[in-house]
Amino acid sequence: MENMVWSKKEKQIARQAFNKAYKNEVTDIMNKAKDRLHTLENPKEIWELHDFLTDKRDETDNKYDYRYSVLILVFSRLINEGWITMDDLKGLGEDKITKINQVLKL
Amino acid sequence: MENMVWSKKEKQIARQAFNKAYKNEVTDIMNKAKDRLHTLENPKEIWELHDFLTDKRDETDNKYDYRYSVLILVFSRLINEGWITMDDLKGLGEDKITKINQVLKL
Repeated sequence: MENMVWSKKEKQIARQAFNKAYKNEVTDIMNKAKDRLHTLENPKEIWELHDFLTDKRDETDNKYDYRYSVLILVFSRLINEGWITMDDLKGLGEDKITKINQVLKL
Repeated sequence: MENMVWSKKEKQIARQAFNKAYKNEVTDIMNKAKDRLHTLENPKEIWELHDFLTDKRDETDNKYDYRYSVLILVFSRLINEGWITMDDLKGLGEDKITKINQVLKL
């Protein structure tokens, strides 16, 4: 996977899909934060929201790694978690699509 | 201030005032978090809310120090910031009230 060549067009598609997944996930985090804030029974539980955001920030900082050497694995994970679908990667070469499908079947 | 003697009754009053201030401040933090969440223009700004909560958590962890050796200074600060008033400390000995007033005038 590390030696794959990404064409200019593929890089554009990859970047778009990557950004879309990030936006979808961060929107989900925002909505979950809103739900939590609305259902707080005690103001002190605000720190539980802080813990939640700390965890999510660490998780997304690690997950959204846009290096071509790891991008196949990153996309596999983002598809598996539902932040994007294979449709969002339409236009990538068969070599990449095949690898992603292989990872998804593991 | 470190050698002040706190009677059982004074300790009860102090603990109540301390808890009231904490509840007031954390409620304020919660309300500010709600305001921020409602006015987010971009989901990525959720991390600004996280930064805000990190700062407030550090600040309150440091500020709410219930040791009798520092309590006069803590109460002075809590009054100065508006989380409690002198009325909440009614019943403390004159030695304590005088010290707090002296700190507030500094």
